[in-house]
Amino acid sequence: MLIEVADASDPRLGDYVALRDTALRRSLESERGLFIAEGEKVIRRAVEAGHRPRSFLLAERWLPGLADLWEARPDVPVYVVTEAVAEAVTGFHVHRGALASLHRAAPARMADLLDARRLVVAEDVVDHTNVGALIRGAAGLGWDGVLLAPRAADPLYRRAIKVSMGTVFALPWARVNDWATALPALREAGFTVVAFALTPDAVPLDAYVAAGVPERLALVVGTEGDGLSQRWIDQADVVVSIPMSRGVDSLNVAAATAVACWALR
Amino acid sequence: MLIEVADASDPRLGDYVALRDTALRRSLESERGLFIAEGEKVIRRAVEAGHRPRSFLLAERWLPGLADLWEARPDVPVYVVTEAVAEAVTGFHVHRGALASLHRAAPARMADLLDARRLVVAEDVVDHTNVGALIRGAAGLGWDGVLLAPRAADPLYRRAIKVSMGTVFALPWARVNDWATALPALREAGFTVVAFALTPDAVPLDAYVAAGVPERLALVVGTEGDGLSQRWIDQADVVVSIPMSRGVDSLNVAAATAVACWALR
Repeated sequence: MLIEVADASDPRLGDYVALRDTALRRSLESERGLFIAEGEKVIRRAVEAGHRPRSFLLAERWLPGLADLWEARPDVPVYVVTEAVAEAVTGFHVHRGALASLHRAAPARMADLLDARRLVVAEDVVDHTNVGALIRGAAGLGWDGVLLAPRAADPLYRRAIKVSMGTVFALPWARVNDWATALPALREAGFTVVAFALTPDAVPLDAYVAAGVPERLALVVGTEGDGLSQRWIDQADVVVSIPMSRGVDSLNVAAATAVACWALR
Repeated sequence: MLIEVADASDPRLGDYVALRDTALRRSLESERGLFIAEGEKVIRRAVEAGHRPRSFLLAERWLPGLADLWEARPDVPVYVVTEAVAEAVTGFHVHRGALASLHRAAPARMADLLDARRLVVAEDVVDHTNVGALIRGAAGLGWDGVLLAPRAADPLYRRAIKVSMGTVFALPWARVNDWATALPALREAGFTVVAFALTPDAVPLDAYVAAGVPERLALVVGTEGDGLSQRWIDQADVVVSIPMSRGVDSLNVAAATAVACWALR
Protein backbone atom coordinates (compact mmCIF):
# COMPACT_ATOMS: atom_id res chain seq x y z
CA MET A 1 0.00 0.00 0.00
CA LEU A 2 1.75 3.12 -1.28
CA ILE A 3 1.30 6.24 0.87
CA GLU A 4 3.03 9.46 -0.03
CA VAL A 5 4.10 11.42 3.04
CA ALA A 6 5.36 14.99 2.65
CA ASP A 7 5.56 15.99 6.31
CA ALA A 8 8.53 14.73 8.33
CA SER A 9 6.56 15.10 11.56
CA ASP A 10 3.76 12.80 10.36
CA PRO A 11 3.22 10.36 13.25
CA ARG A 12 2.99 7.44 10.82
CA LEU A 13 6.75 7.78 10.36
CA GLY A 14 7.30 7.38 14.10
CA ASP A 15 9.20 4.07 13.75
CA TYR A 16 11.95 5.90 11.84
CA VAL A 17 12.71 8.96 13.97
CA ALA A 18 16.21 9.93 15.06
CA LEU A 19 17.98 6.76 13.94
CA ARG A 20 21.32 8.02 15.23
CA ASP A 21 20.10 8.62 18.78
CA THR A 22 21.17 5.33 20.34
CA ALA A 23 19.52 5.86 23.71
CA LEU A 24 16.20 6.95 22.23
CA ARG A 25 16.22 4.16 19.67
CA ARG A 26 16.95 1.52 22.27
CA SER A 27 13.88 2.39 24.31
CA LEU A 28 11.65 3.05 21.29
CA GLU A 29 12.55 -0.22 19.57
CA SER A 30 12.17 -2.35 22.66
CA GLU A 31 8.85 -0.69 23.57
CA ARG A 32 7.40 -1.19 20.11
CA GLY A 33 9.11 -4.53 19.45
CA LEU A 34 10.67 -3.47 16.18
CA PHE A 35 13.99 -3.11 14.45
CA ILE A 36 15.13 -1.12 11.43
CA ALA A 37 16.81 -2.56 8.34
CA GLU A 38 18.61 -0.29 5.89
CA GLY A 39 19.37 -0.87 2.23
CA GLU A 40 17.69 -3.14 -0.29
CA LYS A 41 19.95 -6.14 0.27
CA VAL A 42 19.64 -6.11 4.05
CA ILE A 43 15.87 -5.53 3.98
CA ARG A 44 15.51 -8.46 1.62
CA ARG A 45 17.59 -10.70 3.88
CA ALA A 46 15.55 -9.72 6.92
CA VAL A 47 12.27 -10.53 5.21
CA GLU A 48 13.59 -13.76 3.72
CA ALA A 49 14.74 -14.80 7.20
CA GLY A 50 11.10 -14.55 8.29
CA HIS A 51 10.93 -11.13 9.93
CA ARG A 52 7.55 -9.51 9.28
CA PRO A 53 7.63 -5.89 7.99
CA ARG A 54 5.62 -3.25 9.87
CA SER A 55 6.22 -0.68 7.12
CA PHE A 56 8.68 0.50 4.50
CA LEU A 57 10.12 4.00 4.09
CA LEU A 58 11.32 4.44 0.52
CA ALA A 59 12.44 7.21 -1.75
CA GLU A 60 10.56 6.86 -5.02
CA ARG A 61 13.49 5.52 -6.99
CA TRP A 62 13.83 2.57 -4.59
CA LEU A 63 10.25 1.40 -5.12
CA PRO A 64 10.93 -0.89 -8.11
CA GLY A 65 13.86 -2.74 -6.51
CA LEU A 66 11.74 -3.89 -3.58
CA ALA A 67 8.44 -4.20 -5.46
CA ASP A 68 8.19 -7.96 -5.03
CA LEU A 69 8.31 -7.51 -1.24
CA TRP A 70 5.75 -4.74 -0.83
CA GLU A 71 3.40 -5.87 -3.59
CA ALA A 72 3.10 -9.25 -1.89
CA ARG A 73 2.07 -7.51 1.35
CA PRO A 74 -0.80 -5.15 0.52
CA ASP A 75 -1.58 -4.58 4.20
CA VAL A 76 1.92 -3.22 4.95
CA PRO A 77 2.21 0.55 4.40
CA VAL A 78 4.94 1.79 2.07
CA TYR A 79 5.69 5.39 2.99
CA VAL A 80 7.03 7.11 -0.10
CA VAL A 81 9.08 10.17 0.77
CA THR A 82 11.61 12.53 -0.78
CA GLU A 83 15.21 12.13 0.35
CA ALA A 84 14.84 15.46 2.20
CA VAL A 85 11.91 14.13 4.23
CA ALA A 86 13.79 10.89 4.92
CA GLU A 87 16.72 12.91 6.20
CA ALA A 88 14.51 15.13 8.35
CA VAL A 89 12.85 12.11 9.97
CA THR A 90 15.88 9.92 10.52
CA GLY A 91 18.43 12.62 11.26
CA PHE A 92 20.91 11.63 8.55
CA HIS A 93 21.23 11.21 4.84
CA VAL A 94 19.96 7.73 4.04
CA HIS A 95 22.54 6.73 1.45
CA ARG A 96 20.79 3.64 0.31
CA GLY A 97 17.38 5.31 0.17
CA ALA A 98 15.48 2.35 1.62
CA LEU A 99 14.44 1.59 5.18
CA ALA A 100 12.09 -0.96 6.66
CA SER A 101 10.67 -1.37 10.13
CA LEU A 102 10.20 -5.02 11.07
CA HIS A 103 8.64 -6.89 13.95
CA ARG A 104 11.15 -8.51 16.26
CA ALA A 105 10.35 -12.18 16.26
CA ALA A 106 10.73 -14.06 19.52
CA PRO A 107 14.51 -14.51 19.79
CA ALA A 108 16.18 -17.89 19.77
CA ARG A 109 16.94 -19.28 23.21
CA MET A 110 20.28 -20.49 24.48
CA ALA A 111 18.87 -24.02 24.62
CA ASP A 112 18.27 -23.90 20.86
CA LEU A 113 22.00 -23.56 20.24
CA LEU A 114 23.30 -26.29 22.51
CA ASP A 115 23.54 -28.98 19.85
CA ALA A 116 26.10 -26.91 17.93
CA ARG A 117 29.73 -27.88 17.39
CA ARG A 118 31.25 -24.38 17.34
CA LEU A 119 29.85 -21.42 19.25
CA VAL A 120 31.21 -17.95 19.87
CA VAL A 121 30.19 -16.61 23.27
CA ALA A 122 30.57 -12.85 23.62
CA GLU A 123 30.65 -11.29 27.07
CA ASP A 124 30.03 -7.53 27.28
CA VAL A 125 30.81 -6.51 23.71
CA VAL A 126 28.89 -3.24 23.93
CA ASP A 127 29.72 -1.67 20.58
CA HIS A 128 27.18 -2.33 17.82
CA THR A 129 29.87 -2.31 15.15
CA ASN A 130 31.82 -4.99 16.97
CA VAL A 131 28.79 -7.21 17.54
CA GLY A 132 27.87 -6.94 13.86
CA ALA A 133 31.41 -7.66 12.69
CA LEU A 134 31.79 -10.54 15.13
CA ILE A 135 28.61 -12.22 13.87
CA ARG A 136 29.65 -11.66 10.24
CA GLY A 137 32.98 -13.33 10.94
CA ALA A 138 31.50 -16.29 12.78
CA ALA A 139 28.92 -16.81 10.03
CA GLY A 140 31.38 -16.45 7.17
CA LEU A 141 33.89 -18.79 8.76
CA GLY A 142 31.35 -21.56 9.21
CA TRP A 143 30.65 -21.43 12.93
CA ASP A 144 27.23 -22.56 14.16
CA GLY A 145 26.03 -19.70 16.32
CA VAL A 146 26.71 -16.88 18.75
CA LEU A 147 25.68 -16.52 22.38
CA LEU A 148 25.62 -13.07 23.94
CA ALA A 149 25.93 -12.04 27.57
CA PRO A 150 23.07 -9.88 28.89
CA ARG A 151 24.98 -6.63 28.47
CA ALA A 152 26.34 -7.27 24.97
CA ALA A 153 24.99 -4.96 22.27
CA ASP A 154 21.81 -5.80 20.34
CA PRO A 155 22.49 -7.56 17.00
CA LEU A 156 19.22 -6.14 15.65
CA TYR A 157 20.28 -2.55 16.16
CA ARG A 158 20.48 -0.83 12.75
CA ARG A 159 24.23 -0.28 12.87
CA ALA A 160 24.94 -3.87 13.95
CA ILE A 161 22.75 -5.24 11.15
CA LYS A 162 24.50 -3.05 8.62
CA VAL A 163 28.04 -3.95 9.67
CA SER A 164 27.04 -7.62 9.78
CA MET A 165 25.85 -7.30 6.14
CA GLY A 166 22.63 -8.94 7.25
CA THR A 167 24.37 -12.06 8.60
CA VAL A 168 22.51 -11.49 11.91
CA PHE A 169 19.58 -12.98 10.00
CA ALA A 170 21.52 -15.99 8.77
CA LEU A 171 23.42 -17.15 11.85
CA PRO A 172 21.52 -18.35 14.93
CA TRP A 173 22.23 -16.24 18.00
CA ALA A 174 20.73 -15.96 21.46
CA ARG A 175 21.26 -14.36 24.83
CA VAL A 176 22.69 -16.58 27.55
CA ASN A 177 20.16 -17.32 30.27
CA ASP A 178 22.33 -16.06 33.09
CA TRP A 179 25.78 -14.53 33.21
CA ALA A 180 26.94 -16.45 36.28
CA THR A 181 25.94 -19.92 35.07
CA ALA A 182 26.35 -19.63 31.30
CA LEU A 183 29.79 -21.23 31.03
CA PRO A 184 29.08 -24.08 33.47
CA ALA A 185 25.92 -24.77 31.44
CA LEU A 186 27.98 -24.97 28.25
CA ARG A 187 30.44 -27.37 29.85
CA GLU A 188 27.52 -29.41 31.12
CA ALA A 189 26.23 -29.54 27.52
CA GLY A 190 29.52 -31.03 26.36
CA PHE A 191 31.43 -27.99 25.13
CA THR A 192 35.09 -27.37 25.83
CA VAL A 193 35.05 -23.73 26.92
CA VAL A 194 38.00 -21.79 25.51
CA ALA A 195 38.43 -18.31 26.97
CA PHE A 196 40.22 -15.84 24.74
CA ALA A 197 42.25 -13.56 27.01
CA LEU A 198 45.74 -12.15 27.29
CA THR A 199 46.52 -13.60 30.72
CA PRO A 200 50.15 -14.42 31.50
CA ASP A 201 49.48 -18.16 31.58
CA ALA A 202 47.37 -18.27 28.42
CA VAL A 203 48.22 -20.96 25.86
CA PRO A 204 49.28 -19.40 22.54
CA LEU A 205 46.65 -20.04 19.87
CA ASP A 206 49.01 -21.91 17.54
CA ALA A 207 50.17 -24.24 20.33
CA TYR A 208 46.56 -24.88 21.29
CA VAL A 209 45.63 -25.74 17.70
CA ALA A 210 48.71 -27.96 17.29
CA ALA A 211 47.71 -30.00 20.35
CA GLY A 212 44.38 -30.88 18.72
CA VAL A 213 41.09 -29.00 18.76
CA PRO A 214 38.16 -30.57 20.62
CA GLU A 215 35.08 -31.78 18.77
CA ARG A 216 32.72 -29.27 20.40
CA LEU A 217 34.05 -25.91 21.37
CA ALA A 218 32.72 -22.63 22.78
CA LEU A 219 35.04 -19.70 22.16
CA VAL A 220 34.55 -17.02 24.80
CA VAL A 221 35.52 -13.42 24.00
CA GLY A 222 35.35 -10.31 26.14
CA THR A 223 34.64 -6.60 26.08
CA GLU A 224 36.49 -4.04 24.00
CA GLY A 225 38.14 -2.34 26.94
CA ASP A 226 38.81 -4.75 29.75
CA GLY A 227 38.53 -8.15 28.10
CA LEU A 228 36.86 -11.07 29.82
CA SER A 229 35.69 -10.92 33.42
CA GLN A 230 37.73 -12.89 35.93
CA ARG A 231 34.68 -15.06 36.60
CA TRP A 232 34.42 -16.19 32.99
CA ILE A 233 38.17 -16.75 32.79
CA ASP A 234 38.02 -18.90 35.93
CA GLN A 235 35.07 -20.89 34.61
CA ALA A 236 36.74 -21.79 31.30
CA ASP A 237 38.49 -25.07 30.57
CA VAL A 238 41.49 -23.30 29.06
CA VAL A 239 42.68 -19.76 28.37
CA VAL A 240 44.11 -19.12 24.91
CA SER A 241 45.68 -15.96 23.47
CA ILE A 242 47.04 -14.57 20.21
CA PRO A 243 50.60 -13.50 21.04
CA MET A 244 51.07 -9.81 20.16
CA SER A 245 54.03 -8.09 18.49
CA ARG A 246 55.34 -4.50 18.59
CA GLY A 247 53.90 -3.75 22.01
CA VAL A 248 50.36 -3.91 20.63
CA ASP A 249 47.95 -4.57 23.49
CA SER A 250 45.41 -6.60 21.59
CA LEU A 251 43.46 -6.95 18.38
CA ASN A 252 40.02 -5.50 18.00
CA VAL A 253 37.53 -8.04 19.40
CA ALA A 254 35.96 -8.75 15.99
CA ALA A 255 39.35 -9.25 14.33
CA ALA A 256 40.56 -11.46 17.19
CA THR A 257 37.39 -13.52 16.97
CA ALA A 258 37.79 -13.93 13.20
CA VAL A 259 41.37 -15.14 13.67
CA ALA A 260 40.26 -17.61 16.32
CA CYS A 261 37.27 -18.79 14.26
CA TRP A 262 39.67 -19.45 11.40
CA ALA A 263 42.28 -21.23 13.49
CA LEU A 264 39.76 -23.34 15.45
CA ARG A 265 37.29 -24.07 12.65
CA MET B 1 52.89 26.95 28.55
CA LEU B 2 49.38 26.87 30.10
CA ILE B 3 46.84 29.16 28.45
CA GLU B 4 43.24 29.21 29.63
CA VAL B 5 40.80 29.75 26.78
CA ALA B 6 37.15 30.45 27.54
CA ASP B 7 35.93 31.32 24.04
CA ALA B 8 35.30 28.48 21.61
CA SER B 9 35.81 30.80 18.65
CA ASP B 10 39.32 31.81 19.76
CA PRO B 11 41.47 31.43 16.61
CA ARG B 12 44.24 29.78 18.64
CA LEU B 13 41.98 26.71 18.82
CA GLY B 14 41.77 26.57 15.02
CA ASP B 15 43.60 23.23 14.75
CA TYR B 16 40.75 21.58 16.65
CA VAL B 17 37.61 22.80 14.89
CA ALA B 18 34.86 20.51 13.63
CA LEU B 19 36.70 17.22 14.15
CA ARG B 20 33.79 15.23 12.79
CA ASP B 21 33.65 17.08 9.48
CA THR B 22 35.77 14.73 7.37
CA ALA B 23 35.95 16.90 4.26
CA LEU B 24 36.86 20.05 6.17
CA ARG B 25 39.43 18.24 8.30
CA ARG B 26 41.09 16.64 5.31
CA SER B 27 41.82 19.99 3.68
CA LEU B 28 42.65 21.77 6.95
CA GLU B 29 45.07 19.08 8.11
CA SER B 30 46.86 18.77 4.81
CA GLU B 31 47.10 22.55 4.43
CA ARG B 32 48.57 23.00 7.93
CA GLY B 33 50.56 19.76 7.94
CA LEU B 34 49.08 18.49 11.17
CA PHE B 35 47.15 15.60 12.63
CA ILE B 36 45.08 15.22 15.79
CA ALA B 37 45.65 12.63 18.49
CA GLU B 38 42.96 11.89 21.05
CA GLY B 39 43.30 10.44 24.54
CA GLU B 40 46.27 10.31 26.87
CA LYS B 41 47.60 6.95 25.69
CA VAL B 42 47.47 7.78 21.98
CA ILE B 43 48.97 11.27 22.46
CA ARG B 44 51.80 9.72 24.42
CA ARG B 45 52.46 7.15 21.69
CA ALA B 46 52.48 9.82 18.99
CA VAL B 47 55.02 11.93 20.89
CA GLU B 48 57.16 8.94 21.79
CA ALA B 49 57.21 7.96 18.10
CA GLY B 50 58.83 11.32 17.40
CA HIS B 51 55.88 13.44 16.26
CA ARG B 52 56.33 17.02 17.43
CA PRO B 53 53.31 18.61 19.19
CA ARG B 54 51.99 21.94 17.88
CA SER B 55 49.67 22.36 20.88
CA PHE B 56 47.57 20.49 23.42
CA LEU B 57 43.88 21.02 24.18
CA LEU B 58 43.14 19.71 27.64
CA ALA B 59 40.34 19.84 30.16
CA GLU B 60 41.85 20.77 33.51
CA ARG B 61 41.60 17.33 35.03
CA TRP B 62 43.75 15.89 32.23
CA LEU B 63 46.66 18.23 32.89
CA PRO B 64 48.46 16.05 35.48
CA GLY B 65 48.38 12.88 33.40
CA LEU B 66 50.27 14.49 30.53
CA ALA B 67 52.39 16.86 32.65
CA ASP B 68 55.69 15.21 31.71
CA LEU B 69 54.96 15.88 28.03
CA TRP B 70 53.93 19.54 28.23
CA GLU B 71 56.31 20.53 31.01
CA ALA B 72 59.23 19.31 28.89
CA ARG B 73 58.04 21.56 26.02
CA PRO B 74 57.61 25.07 27.43
CA ASP B 75 57.27 26.55 23.94
CA VAL B 76 54.25 24.39 23.07
CA PRO B 77 50.94 25.99 24.09
CA VAL B 78 48.61 23.98 26.31
CA TYR B 79 45.09 25.31 25.83
CA VAL B 80 43.15 24.61 29.01
CA VAL B 81 39.42 24.55 28.39
CA THR B 82 36.21 23.40 30.02
CA GLU B 83 34.56 20.33 28.54
CA ALA B 84 31.82 22.60 27.20
CA VAL B 85 34.34 24.70 25.28
CA ALA B 86 36.06 21.55 24.00
CA GLU B 87 32.71 20.30 22.75
CA ALA B 88 31.82 23.63 21.13
CA VAL B 89 35.14 23.72 19.25
CA THR B 90 35.39 20.11 18.16
CA GLY B 91 31.70 19.45 17.58
CA PHE B 92 31.45 16.46 19.88
CA HIS B 93 31.86 15.41 23.49
CA VAL B 94 35.54 14.58 23.91
CA HIS B 95 35.22 11.52 26.11
CA ARG B 96 38.84 11.26 26.97
CA GLY B 97 39.25 15.00 27.61
CA ALA B 98 42.64 15.27 25.92
CA LEU B 99 43.59 16.28 22.40
CA ALA B 100 46.88 17.20 20.79
CA SER B 101 47.72 18.69 17.43
CA LEU B 102 51.00 17.35 16.04
CA HIS B 103 53.20 18.12 13.06
CA ARG B 104 53.08 15.50 10.33
CA ALA B 105 56.61 14.28 9.88
CA ALA B 106 57.75 13.46 6.36
CA PRO B 107 56.12 10.07 5.70
CA ALA B 108 58.09 6.91 5.07
CA ARG B 109 58.60 6.06 1.40
CA MET B 110 57.76 2.79 -0.30
CA ALA B 111 61.47 2.18 -0.82
CA ASP B 112 61.99 2.21 2.97
CA LEU B 113 59.77 -0.85 3.32
CA LEU B 114 61.21 -3.04 0.59
CA ASP B 115 63.57 -4.99 2.82
CA ALA B 116 60.62 -6.36 4.79
CA ARG B 117 59.55 -10.01 4.86
CA ARG B 118 55.82 -9.49 5.29
CA LEU B 119 53.90 -6.52 3.94
CA VAL B 120 50.20 -5.79 3.71
CA VAL B 121 49.32 -3.76 0.63
CA ALA B 122 45.91 -2.09 0.79
CA GLU B 123 44.30 -0.87 -2.39
CA ASP B 124 41.44 1.63 -2.01
CA VAL B 125 40.42 0.98 1.59
CA VAL B 126 38.65 4.30 2.01
CA ASP B 127 37.14 3.92 5.47
CA HIS B 128 39.28 5.33 8.29
CA THR B 129 38.04 2.69 10.71
CA ASN B 130 39.13 -0.08 8.37
CA VAL B 131 42.57 1.42 7.74
CA GLY B 132 43.13 1.82 11.48
CA ALA B 133 41.95 -1.71 12.24
CA LEU B 134 43.99 -3.18 9.39
CA ILE B 135 47.20 -1.55 10.66
CA ARG B 136 46.46 -2.64 14.22
CA GLY B 137 46.06 -6.22 13.04
CA ALA B 138 49.20 -6.22 10.90
CA ALA B 139 51.22 -4.70 13.76
CA GLY B 140 49.86 -7.01 16.45
CA LEU B 141 50.37 -10.11 14.31
CA GLY B 142 54.02 -9.34 13.69
CA TRP B 143 53.99 -8.12 10.10
CA ASP B 144 56.64 -5.64 9.02
CA GLY B 145 54.70 -2.83 7.40
CA VAL B 146 51.75 -1.60 5.35
CA LEU B 147 51.70 -0.04 1.90
CA LEU B 148 48.71 2.02 0.85
CA ALA B 149 47.39 2.82 -2.61
CA PRO B 150 46.98 6.52 -3.36
CA ARG B 151 43.25 6.52 -2.62
CA ALA B 152 43.34 4.55 0.62
CA ALA B 153 42.30 6.49 3.72
CA ASP B 154 44.84 8.46 5.76
CA PRO B 155 46.22 6.49 8.75
CA LEU B 156 46.85 9.78 10.56
CA TYR B 157 43.22 10.82 10.47
CA ARG B 158 41.92 11.02 14.07
CA ARG B 159 39.48 8.15 13.73
CA ALA B 160 42.06 5.87 12.08
CA ILE B 161 44.60 6.61 14.82
CA LYS B 162 42.01 5.89 17.49
CA VAL B 163 40.82 2.59 16.02
CA SER B 164 44.45 1.56 15.50
CA MET B 165 45.10 2.21 19.21
CA GLY B 166 48.10 4.27 18.16
CA THR B 167 49.71 1.38 16.24
CA VAL B 168 49.92 3.71 13.20
CA PHE B 169 52.90 5.17 15.12
CA ALA B 170 54.52 1.79 15.75
CA LEU B 171 54.27 0.04 12.39
CA PRO B 172 56.04 1.47 9.32
CA TRP B 173 53.63 2.39 6.55
CA ALA B 174 53.93 4.32 3.30
CA ARG B 175 52.03 5.18 0.15
CA VAL B 176 52.95 3.22 -2.97
CA ASN B 177 54.69 5.38 -5.55
CA ASP B 178 52.26 4.59 -8.31
CA TRP B 179 49.14 2.49 -8.51
CA ALA B 180 49.91 0.95 -11.90
CA THR B 181 53.45 -0.16 -11.12
CA ALA B 182 53.28 -0.91 -7.39
CA LEU B 183 52.84 -4.67 -7.64
CA PRO B 184 55.43 -5.20 -10.39
CA ALA B 185 57.85 -3.18 -8.22
CA LEU B 186 57.18 -5.47 -5.28
CA ARG B 187 57.77 -8.57 -7.41
CA GLU B 188 60.96 -6.95 -8.70
CA ALA B 189 62.02 -6.45 -5.08
CA GLY B 190 61.64 -10.16 -4.41
CA PHE B 191 58.15 -10.41 -2.94
CA THR B 192 55.63 -13.06 -3.82
CA VAL B 193 52.49 -11.00 -4.37
CA VAL B 194 49.40 -12.69 -2.96
CA ALA B 195 46.12 -11.05 -3.92
CA PHE B 196 43.25 -11.63 -1.54
CA ALA B 197 40.07 -11.85 -3.59
CA LEU B 198 37.00 -14.02 -3.95
CA THR B 199 37.53 -14.95 -7.60
CA PRO B 200 36.23 -18.33 -8.76
CA ASP B 201 39.76 -19.68 -9.35
CA ALA B 202 41.24 -18.39 -6.08
CA VAL B 203 43.27 -20.88 -4.02
CA PRO B 204 41.64 -21.45 -0.61
CA LEU B 205 43.80 -19.93 2.14
CA ASP B 206 44.32 -23.22 3.98
CA ALA B 207 45.45 -25.00 0.80
CA TYR B 208 47.83 -22.14 0.06
CA VAL B 209 49.34 -22.33 3.56
CA ALA B 210 49.60 -26.13 3.40
CA ALA B 211 51.63 -25.89 0.17
CA GLY B 212 54.26 -23.77 1.92
CA VAL B 213 54.40 -20.01 2.43
CA PRO B 214 57.14 -18.05 0.61
CA GLU B 215 59.91 -16.34 2.52
CA ARG B 216 58.92 -12.84 1.46
CA LEU B 217 55.30 -12.08 0.87
CA ALA B 218 53.13 -9.07 0.04
CA LEU B 219 49.46 -9.60 0.89
CA VAL B 220 47.25 -7.43 -1.29
CA VAL B 221 43.76 -6.52 -0.06
CA GLY B 222 41.05 -4.45 -1.71
CA THR B 223 38.29 -1.97 -1.06
CA GLU B 224 35.32 -2.53 1.20
CA GLY B 225 32.77 -2.62 -1.59
CA ASP B 226 34.22 -4.00 -4.76
CA GLY B 227 37.39 -5.76 -3.60
CA LEU B 228 40.59 -5.59 -5.59
CA SER B 229 40.81 -4.01 -9.03
CA GLN B 230 41.21 -6.40 -11.95
CA ARG B 231 44.60 -4.82 -12.67
CA TRP B 232 45.97 -5.70 -9.25
CA ILE B 233 44.47 -9.20 -9.43
CA ASP B 234 46.13 -9.71 -12.81
CA GLN B 235 49.49 -8.45 -11.55
CA ALA B 236 49.63 -10.80 -8.54
CA ASP B 237 51.53 -14.10 -8.46
CA VAL B 238 48.57 -15.91 -6.95
CA VAL B 239 45.00 -15.19 -5.86
CA VAL B 240 43.96 -16.59 -2.48
CA SER B 241 40.58 -16.49 -0.73
CA ILE B 242 38.95 -17.40 2.55
CA PRO B 243 36.09 -19.74 1.64
CA MET B 244 32.81 -18.37 3.00
CA SER B 245 29.93 -20.23 4.65
CA ARG B 246 26.18 -19.50 4.98
CA GLY B 247 26.04 -17.41 1.84
CA VAL B 248 28.14 -14.68 3.44
CA ASP B 249 29.72 -12.56 0.70
CA SER B 250 32.95 -11.74 2.49
CA LEU B 251 34.53 -10.75 5.77
CA ASN B 252 35.16 -7.13 6.64
CA VAL B 253 38.49 -6.13 5.09
CA ALA B 254 40.22 -5.66 8.46
CA ALA B 255 38.97 -9.02 9.75
CA ALA B 256 39.97 -10.78 6.52
CA THR B 257 43.41 -9.18 6.70
CA ALA B 258 43.84 -10.27 10.32
CA VAL B 259 42.94 -13.86 9.41
CA ALA B 260 45.40 -13.80 6.50
CA CYS B 261 48.14 -12.17 8.63
CA TRP B 262 47.67 -14.95 11.15
CA ALA B 263 47.62 -17.78 8.60
CA LEU B 264 50.59 -16.45 6.59
CA ARG B 265 52.73 -15.10 9.44
